[in-house]
Amino acid sequence: MNIKEEMIKIARQARSASRLIANLSAAEKNAVLKDMAKALVISQAAILKANVLDLKNARKAGLKSSFVERLTLDKQRIREMSDSLLQVAKLSDPIGTVIKSWKLKNGLLIRKERCAIGVIAIIYESRPNVTSDCIGLCFKSGNSVILRGGSESINSNLAIYKALNKALAKHNIPHGAVSLVATSDRKAVDALLKLNDHIDLVIPRGGEGLIRHVVEASRIPVIKHYKGICHVYVDDEADLNMADDICINAKLQRPGVCNAMESMLVHRLAAARFLPGILKKFRDAGVEVRGCALTKKIAKWVKLATEKDYRTEYLDLILSVKVVDSLEQAIEHINNYGSHHSDSIVTDNQENARRFLKSVDSACVYRNASTRFTDGFQFGMGAEIGISTDKLHARGPMALEELTTYKYMVFGSGQVRR
Amino acid sequence: MNIKEEMIKIARQARSASRLIANLSAAEKNAVLKDMAKALVISQAAILKANVLDLKNARKAGLKSSFVERLTLDKQRIREMSDSLLQVAKLSDPIGTVIKSWKLKNGLLIRKERCAIGVIAIIYESRPNVTSDCIGLCFKSGNSVILRGGSESINSNLAIYKALNKALAKHNIPHGAVSLVATSDRKAVDALLKLNDHIDLVIPRGGEGLIRHVVEASRIPVIKHYKGICHVYVDDEADLNMADDICINAKLQRPGVCNAMESMLVHRLAAARFLPGILKKFRDAGVEVRGCALTKKIAKWVKLATEKDYRTEYLDLILSVKVVDSLEQAIEHINNYGSHHSDSIVTDNQENARRFLKSVDSACVYRNASTRFTDGFQFGMGAEIGISTDKLHARGPMALEELTTYKYMVFGSGQVRR
Repeated sequence: MNIKEEMIKIARQARSASRLIANLSAAEKNAVLKDMAKALVISQAAILKANVLDLKNARKAGLKSSFVERLTLDKQRIREMSDSLLQVAKLSDPIGTVIKSWKLKNGLLIRKERCAIGVIAIIYESRPNVTSDCIGLCFKSGNSVILRGGSESINSNLAIYKALNKALAKHNIPHGAVSLVATSDRKAVDALLKLNDHIDLVIPRGGEGLIRHVVEASRIPVIKHYKGICHVYVDDEADLNMADDICINAKLQRPGVCNAMESMLVHRLAAARFLPGILKKFRDAGVEVRGCALTKKIAKWVKLATEKDYRTEYLDLILSVKVVDSLEQAIEHINNYGSHHSDSIVTDNQENARRFLKSVDSACVYRNASTRFTDGFQFGMGAEIGISTDKLHARGPMALEELTTYKYMVFGSGQVRR
Repeated sequence: MNIKEEMIKIARQARSASRLIANLSAAEKNAVLKDMAKALVISQAAILKANVLDLKNARKAGLKSSFVERLTLDKQRIREMSDSLLQVAKLSDPIGTVIKSWKLKNGLLIRKERCAIGVIAIIYESRPNVTSDCIGLCFKSGNSVILRGGSESINSNLAIYKALNKALAKHNIPHGAVSLVATSDRKAVDALLKLNDHIDLVIPRGGEGLIRHVVEASRIPVIKHYKGICHVYVDDEADLNMADDICINAKLQRPGVCNAMESMLVHRLAAARFLPGILKKFRDAGVEVRGCALTKKIAKWVKLATEKDYRTEYLDLILSVKVVDSLEQAIEHINNYGSHHSDSIVTDNQENARRFLKSVDSACVYRNASTRFTDGFQFGMGAEIGISTDKLHARGPMALEELTTYKYMVFGSGQVRR
C-alpha cells in the first residue's frame, strides 16, 4: 500500500466511525473522556519514555531551545492534559441542540438542529498536548479526527494516542474515531489534503509556513489564522492611565503569542502626553521600539519603522508604533496592515468606540481591554481548538460549538409541493 | 492592463466599497433596493433589446431549447425580477443583530454580533435573473458582490447591471459595491478565484462541471452543491397512500431541479403492496424506471439498474428504484450513493423516523413530506442565493443570514490579563 492508499484507508475508517459516534449520548461520550483522562495518567511512564526519545532526537538535530521547551513533557504537563480531558467531559454537549424551529403555513415543522461535522483532520507542529486536546474536543463534538503531528514529536504523540485508544477500545468505540498518521513522510499530509470526499474540515495549528502550505495544498475547507498582528489604538479621548496598563499588558504579559500587541497606534493629540512615559517603560522592559517619524521626535532612541514593520508579527520584544491623525486613519491602518485577529481601542468616547468596533474588520474588537483575552478559555468557552481569522463558519476562538454543523429536520404529515 | 490586473482592480474596489456598505442602516439599504426595483422596469426596453441579441447568438450557436428558454427574458420575467428586489427590501436586516452576549467574572462584556462577510463573488451560468437576485441579496446583507455570468447571457447581464447601477449611483453607493466582469475570457474566472486576500467567499451556481472547475481552481472558500441525488425511502411501516403522493410529487412536480427525487427506496416488506401501483403511474407519466432485480420481478418492463444509476442525477423523467432489506440498509445506501442534499422517509413509526433523520447525513432530512420543499422561499426565508451540501458555514437553503459572519465585540473598563 502506498502513502495515498494508506491515507484513503484511514479516511474511510474515520468516515465510517463518524456515522456511529455522531449520535452517541453526552453520557456515553463523557464516560469515554473520563477513561481517557485516567489512561493518560496510567500510561505516564510510557509517554515520558517516548518523549525522552523525541527530546534526544531534537537536541541531536540542533533544534532551538524554545522548540525543545514546547516539546518537553513531564508529570505536571501530563496531569494538565488529563485534567483538560476531564474539563471537556464537563462541558455541555452541543450535539442535538435546536438552533431554531418554525412551522410553515402548510403544517411542515422545520427544525434546525446542531450535529457533528463528520471527519476533521488536524495538522500541527511540536506540542504533544495538542494530540490529547484535539482528540478530546473532536470526540465530544461527535467527530472522527485524523491527527498529523510534527515529525519531531512523533514518539510522544504515538504514546499519547496509544494510551487514549485503550479507553476508546474499552467502550467499543470504532477504531476509526481517532487516527494518528504515524509516518513522518511529508507526502502523507499532501495526500490527506486531497481527500475532500472523505474529510470535511482541516484545522492547521502551527507557524505561518505550515498553515500557508496547508491552504495551498488543500481541496478540503481549512479554518485557520495565519498570524496575529494585533493593535491597540489610543484615542485622543482615552484615559491615559488605562491606556498605559492595557498597552503594557497586551505587549508584555506574553509576547510570543498570537493575541499579543505587535503595533501601537496613538492619536496625534494624545502622543505628547502618552508616548514619553510608555516608551520609557517599554525601553526598560527591553522592548525594541520601531516608530514613525513623529514617535522618533518624542523619543530619539526609537528606530524608524519601515512599511514591513507594520506588517510583521514579531512574537518577540519588538513593537511598532505609529502616531495617527484621526480615528479613521487608525481604522484604515488596522484594516490594511493588521491580520484581522484582535484589535482594541482605548477611549472614553462612546461614539468613537462604536465606530471602531463596527469598522475594524477583525474577529475580536475590544473597547478598553487588552487584546490578550482572545482565547477560548478566557472567553468562557471552557476549551479551545484554535482561533480563526476566517470569516466563514467560525471566527475568533473556536471550541465545541465551532466543531459542529447543522441539518434541517422537516416533519410533515404527507405534504407535497403544489 | 492584463486580465489578472483587471480582476485585482475590481476586487480592490469591491473591498473598499464593502467597508462602507457593511454598516449602512436597513432603511438606507431598502431605499436603494426599491430604486433598483424601479430601475429594472424603467430600463425594460434596453434589457429586452440586449436579451434579443443574446438569444440571436444562442440560436446561431445551436444551443439547445431548454438553454434558450432559461436565457429568455420578457416583460413578465423583468417584472418578477423587480418584485423580487422589493421582497428583499421587506426582509429583516440580519446585520447588527446580537447572536449572543455574556459577561465574564472580570466584568468584560462579550457580544457576538452578526456582520457582513465582505466581498462575495458569484460565478453563474445562463439565467439572467441571477444577476439581479444576487445583487439584491448581497447588497441587503452589506456585502460587495462581483458577478461573473455565462458568456451567452453577457448582453442581458450587462443591461441589468447598468440599470441597477443607476439606482446605486443615485444614492452615492460606491461603484465597487456591485461589479460585473464583462469579459467573456475564461481566464477572468481563474484570476478571480486566486484573489483570496481580496475576496472572502465564492458561490458558484450552475451545472456540476462549472462547480467542479470553481472548486479545483479556487483559493477562496467556496460554498456549493454539486448535485441533488435525492431519495424517498418508503418504510415497511409507511402509510402507502401518503408514500404514493409524496413519491409522485417528488419525482414529477418538476423533474429538472436539484430537489427532485432521483432514487426511490422501498422496504422489502412494502414492495409487493406498494410498487405495482406506483410503477404503473410512473410508466403512464412517461418515466423510465431503472430498478434492482427485485423491482424487475414486480414489473418486468423495468430496466435493470447499474451501480452508476444509483449515483446519477438524471434531472429528467428517469428514476432509479431499489428494494432494501431494512431501514439500516436504506440509510447506508443514501449516505453512500446520495449527494447529501434532501432525503425523505415515509413512515408511521416514530423510532424509525428518528433514526433516519439522525443518521442520514444530508442538509435536509424529511419525515412524511416531499423533498421538493428544500428551497429558501418554501422554507420561509423569503429569498434564496443557493443551496449548500457543504457542512461548513451554511448547509441547505441559503438566504440573507447565510451571507453574514459575526465578530466578537468586547467591552471593558481597563481589564488586563493576569
